[in-house]
Amino acid sequence: MTAKRKPKVGIGLVGSGFMGRCHANAFRSVAGLFDVAAEPELRVLADATDDLAARAAATLGFARGTGDWNELVDADDVDIVAITAPNVLHAPIANAAAAAGKTVYCEKPLSTTAEAALEMTRAAEAAGVVTLVGFNFLRNPMIRLAREIIDSGEIGEVTGFRGRHAENYMADPDAPHSFRTDPQGGGALADIGSHIISMARFLLGPIDEVQGECRTLHATRPAEPGSHERLPVEVDDMTHALVRFASGVSGSLEANWAATGRTMDLSWEITGTRGALAFSQEAMNELLLYSNAPGRRGFTRIEAGPAHPPYGRFCPAPGHHLGFNDLKVIEVADLLTAHAGGPAVGPDFREAYEVQRTVEAIQSSSATRRWVSLRPGP
Amino acid sequence: MTAKRKPKVGIGLVGSGFMGRCHANAFRSVAGLFDVAAEPELRVLADATDDLAARAAATLGFARGTGDWNELVDADDVDIVAITAPNVLHAPIANAAAAAGKTVYCEKPLSTTAEAALEMTRAAEAAGVVTLVGFNFLRNPMIRLAREIIDSGEIGEVTGFRGRHAENYMADPDAPHSFRTDPQGGGALADIGSHIISMARFLLGPIDEVQGECRTLHATRPAEPGSHERLPVEVDDMTHALVRFASGVSGSLEANWAATGRTMDLSWEITGTRGALAFSQEAMNELLLYSNAPGRRGFTRIEAGPAHPPYGRFCPAPGHHLGFNDLKVIEVADLLTAHAGGPAVGPDFREAYEVQRTVEAIQSSSATRRWVSLRPGP
Amino acid sequence: MTAKRKPKVGIGLVGSGFMGRCHANAFRSVAGLFDVAAEPELRVLADATDDLAARAAATLGFARGTGDWNELVDADDVDIVAITAPNVLHAPIANAAAAAGKTVYCEKPLSTTAEAALEMTRAAEAAGVVTLVGFNFLRNPMIRLAREIIDSGEIGEVTGFRGRHAENYMADPDAPHSFRTDPQGGGALADIGSHIISMARFLLGPIDEVQGECRTLHATRPAEPGSHERLPVEVDDMTHALVRFASGVSGSLEANWAATGRTMDLSWEITGTRGALAFSQEAMNELLLYSNAPGRRGFTRIEAGPAHPPYGRFCPAPGHHLGFNDLKVIEVADLLTAHAGGPAVGPDFREAYEVQRTVEAIQSSSATRRWVSLRPGP
Amino acid sequence: MTAKRKPKVGIGLVGSGFMGRCHANAFRSVAGLFDVAAEPELRVLADATDDLAARAAATLGFARGTGDWNELVDADDVDIVAITAPNVLHAPIANAAAAAGKTVYCEKPLSTTAEAALEMTRAAEAAGVVTLVGFNFLRNPMIRLAREIIDSGEIGEVTGFRGRHAENYMADPDAPHSFRTDPQGGGALADIGSHIISMARFLLGPIDEVQGECRTLHATRPAEPGSHERLPVEVDDMTHALVRFASGVSGSLEANWAATGRTMDLSWEITGTRGALAFSQEAMNELLLYSNAPGRRGFTRIEAGPAHPPYGRFCPAPGHHLGFNDLKVIEVADLLTAHAGGPAVGPDFREAYEVQRTVEAIQSSSATRRWVSLRPGP
Repeated sequence: MTAKRKPKVGIGLVGSGFMGRCHANAFRSVAGLFDVAAEPELRVLADATDDLAARAAATLGFARGTGDWNELVDADDVDIVAITAPNVLHAPIANAAAAAGKTVYCEKPLSTTAEAALEMTRAAEAAGVVTLVGFNFLRNPMIRLAREIIDSGEIGEVTGFRGRHAENYMADPDAPHSFRTDPQGGGALADIGSHIISMARFLLGPIDEVQGECRTLHATRPAEPGSHERLPVEVDDMTHALVRFASGVSGSLEANWAATGRTMDLSWEITGTRGALAFSQEAMNELLLYSNAPGRRGFTRIEAGPAHPPYGRFCPAPGHHLGFNDLKVIEVADLLTAHAGGPAVGPDFREAYEVQRTVEAIQSSSATRRWVSLRPGP
Repeated sequence: MTAKRKPKVGIGLVGSGFMGRCHANAFRSVAGLFDVAAEPELRVLADATDDLAARAAATLGFARGTGDWNELVDADDVDIVAITAPNVLHAPIANAAAAAGKTVYCEKPLSTTAEAALEMTRAAEAAGVVTLVGFNFLRNPMIRLAREIIDSGEIGEVTGFRGRHAENYMADPDAPHSFRTDPQGGGALADIGSHIISMARFLLGPIDEVQGECRTLHATRPAEPGSHERLPVEVDDMTHALVRFASGVSGSLEANWAATGRTMDLSWEITGTRGALAFSQEAMNELLLYSNAPGRRGFTRIEAGPAHPPYGRFCPAPGHHLGFNDLKVIEVADLLTAHAGGPAVGPDFREAYEVQRTVEAIQSSSATRRWVSLRPGP
Repeated sequence: MTAKRKPKVGIGLVGSGFMGRCHANAFRSVAGLFDVAAEPELRVLADATDDLAARAAATLGFARGTGDWNELVDADDVDIVAITAPNVLHAPIANAAAAAGKTVYCEKPLSTTAEAALEMTRAAEAAGVVTLVGFNFLRNPMIRLAREIIDSGEIGEVTGFRGRHAENYMADPDAPHSFRTDPQGGGALADIGSHIISMARFLLGPIDEVQGECRTLHATRPAEPGSHERLPVEVDDMTHALVRFASGVSGSLEANWAATGRTMDLSWEITGTRGALAFSQEAMNELLLYSNAPGRRGFTRIEAGPAHPPYGRFCPAPGHHLGFNDLKVIEVADLLTAHAGGPAVGPDFREAYEVQRTVEAIQSSSATRRWVSLRPGP
Repeated sequence: MTAKRKPKVGIGLVGSGFMGRCHANAFRSVAGLFDVAAEPELRVLADATDDLAARAAATLGFARGTGDWNELVDADDVDIVAITAPNVLHAPIANAAAAAGKTVYCEKPLSTTAEAALEMTRAAEAAGVVTLVGFNFLRNPMIRLAREIIDSGEIGEVTGFRGRHAENYMADPDAPHSFRTDPQGGGALADIGSHIISMARFLLGPIDEVQGECRTLHATRPAEPGSHERLPVEVDDMTHALVRFASGVSGSLEANWAATGRTMDLSWEITGTRGALAFSQEAMNELLLYSNAPGRRGFTRIEAGPAHPPYGRFCPAPGHHLGFNDLKVIEVADLLTAHAGGPAVGPDFREAYEVQRTVEAIQSSSATRRWVSLRPGP
């Protein structure tokens, strides 16, 4: 008996690096795990050259490849444009895709400057297209649970925040220059600090005042891998910042890509008057909850399980951990829901712009050694 | 430019429950992540009825469905038969698939008795087909690393083993009867004890003497979900056993599906004369290593990363955790390698038979209250 | 204004090694921390020679020293005889002290054989003196809390036990012979297995059936430190055992003094039908509790604090960890209470005899390869 | 044989609260554990009234009590004056004791203002007496080990610091006013932030620039325990600050006494170019070390043991945890060494003044919303 298939939704993917493969995998997996409105069909993959694109298309399961992303954006059979190209290309591709009425799914950071991100946001909003930016760590069921717990008042009024995203991929002074160290949009704060900022905003709302210190730990780096030529570094390797949320909560955050020994310390503790929550991506299937409710007090380690949607889409029992790639599948499921006219899911371009604006405010506060306000003007 | 595709390998899947979906997902994902010799094509899904099968095929991405697994086994376009049907069907399906010259990929336990498993093994060996049994936890890069460390002599001569697989899915006395409690092949030891046994064998070699105690903690269970009728339980809820490996190492293991509070405590500690290793599936991306080598001593928490193949297939950097479903993708990648004539990968049917034989020896030792030998006879 | 002092109780201590110093320290500290009926006065210290004893007395704060423990036992100003001498001397000293009507505080193991321990028990009971044996780990407020939780039914009916005491002080094959390896009363099971047995009994009651395997991992050891002469080892380095409690609960335990990497893994997990408890001496100020009670489920890490007597005697706030020596202070406080006629506190000699009997039953089961019953005869 | 005793050193203790008992206990214990030059003799205890003092003296083992601390300071048989009186009394008592040529051992904070602390420092330095301030957490062998590792260059050049002292004793909005909330010297930053500041200075040297935000989370508190009258709170409940060390290292710290769920999170992570260290007082017998040195990388959990002096004074084997009170014994041992003319041990009054100056600089930076420099003027 031939299987009756769901309608298809055409996917175009720009870029085939780590994130490109991650997107492709998520689009291939999602329909077997989630009850999607339409099934993704991998149609066009764009990369730097026709040849590269053809090979990546074959590997990742796309019907065809192209060296010209314009062709992908304009293709009639492409409904969703997924952008994992270098940051500098995000704006032109996204703007073209929005103009073509496509749903746009873009990796973070949205662009190389907050200003460019705002333009992209306005373009997408004007075109009325669905947008989603790949802050994948927000998709963790434990993060959704944390948000629910906070919103429910279970930990009382929030009084403090302490967050961090620390990794070590640039700890080596001989790690070379790359797009990551480009003064436009580069640096630890922009690259990974944006994750802890987006998560803080998701959990506690807008940040409206910051004071940080951005530090360059290694003054020069090789011009390219293995090169003896060393060029100066202008971006931060490590930033510590004080933050004040619009709600009045204050706290601190750190972004550090030279944190020797740390590989994924995207972690935070949120303190309330009647309880507290703590999380680290190093133990991504757990949430620690302390509650003043009667009983034997202590931090309870809540394990991810079917009680925490959409975990049950992956496994019917707790204890079967989700992994990083699963977060991307959840993200894509949410994207398909929004594309099909379902409830909007964030973070959209505007939210990504707000994150980027926060990054730049911290950079500015470091330069001026003053608190910088992010509040909307009068 | 149209993508040049790899050759295809036809997949037939029997069963569409949790494990069926897991298999389907792995077959869909594997070619985008691994450099496979041939790309799986999801061709036939068999389930209890044509209707069920058609619907599952649509959801899971198979070309067609069938209510008759014989049809699947006989299909010319099916190269690999994946079996996630109820345990009692494993033998007929696997034997038919082997007879048809298909590669057979079967979920654990291989069969309902060691005797039946031995027959299946002989049938497959006679047919000369590739077999693989789904002890997916063995696919964890951290387990491979543990094996390498042991084999290298880094922890000296192994002196002790302490293992466990404890979950809580049958802790509730009102959890009903199911295939899990069928006296043929059921019980905690067979269901999850087989995981710690297979892992112990993978790491330390054959077990050749056992003495265990199998306990039924809840004497009756509802005949079916919600039923008021209660039927007696004949299988174990919890087993503790002493084990002695052929190498002379001794230790203990536990299987427990009524371990309130535990969701995936598949864990072990292996002690050597110069070091030790410890692992728990609850922290599946970590391996603890203690080494007497000069330096500051203590258990080192090694995090999974690209240094531990095939982690790098999923992510180019450490800290991006693998999840349970990723283990299944690795399993399928290994299956495809073996199917393509590459190096054999275990556990094959014979190994699964040995695991089942160990389960039954422990059950027998509990009944007779004597040590039971697993050594091959003279 | 001169301070009005409490009445004094005279202490005699036999032995001045690690445990002797530990006892001395506890007797010196206890009155400043606990509201004792009488204040200990350190009066006589006995050691192998007069000279050694005099020096130890000076260091540890005793009024006088003696090379003859009989003198100590007979001294009119000694009310409590504390025994930290080699195991082989426990019986004669304790018996003499009991005969002299003294309270006897003896280090574990009570004696070199269960038979001798039983004689000591009978002698003390006949003399009607207070006895206490130094299973200090039982004094931990977290252990008392665990006992309360179990007794209250909070975790339901207990269904399983898994315990261990693993250290590494004999892991080195060149660790020499000593009293620890004396076939009379030596071996890992007797030396540290007795701790997990005493704790299991404290928490879950008598063990009445055992089946264990005692293993000698290093066949010879140097005759003495640094010696080239190697003598055979007859005692166990590692024992794994199945245990069944009189209550019907079954489980397993391990004793291991060659557990490379472990320094104090005195740990256990107790599973009940409605909850579970887990503890490790490596985190001695914590107890993990899982409860099925409504709410967000997971293991809760309960930290020691004033809510867990007698923690508050040491610190008025949680978070200020107790240490090993504090356990000894609590033990001495309990001893003084019993000496003053307060409620009996265990473990007394009879309890220590039961522990020793359990040790010997496991040894016997290993020799005969049969389950051994500890039930009282008809 | 009568024990030959060491010379005596006379102790006078002012105050008999938690810290007073802690001091008394340490003075009673130290000579049995450390090879002290002179044995402490508990001679005079001063408290608010003669009566209170007499009773406390009896309990804590002092020869006599007095309601007048001047009497204690002037007593010929008092060599060391230990001050655990309310903060406001520290200065007059310490100054008098210094003038009388006594060694002065004072609890933290040294005084209610940095200015007063500086006067005390100058008075003590002018008198040439030994001083020691009770930042007891510095006495942990793991902290000494951390310092050695940093100084040795084992983790390379230090690049970042992230520290915190968080407890929850004032989390309840109804926790009443006390000396802790006195605007002079009160607040979370002064009370416990001083611990993380002193530890940061011990490990990484002087802090010379700060920018913090001090927050009052509960605007009013009961005038006294149980009172319905509520008075405004002027001190901080929580402070987050950016810090820059004289060495150029930058980072952040937090002081929080309203950190629901936290009881002793005095913790830090120090990152270097070739390694990293992490510590939390919640696991005070451990130090986490990451090293880039060849081998299998990961954080190694180093357990306290005899390799880390003066741990061996307490126990001859690792795994026997030290507790909070043991830290005080180490502090007193160091005090006696310095009193006997041995090498100076910190933190002395000057160091305590520097800590207090740092506290006030952070408070000032919060008020002015500017970075505040702590560098010595020109």
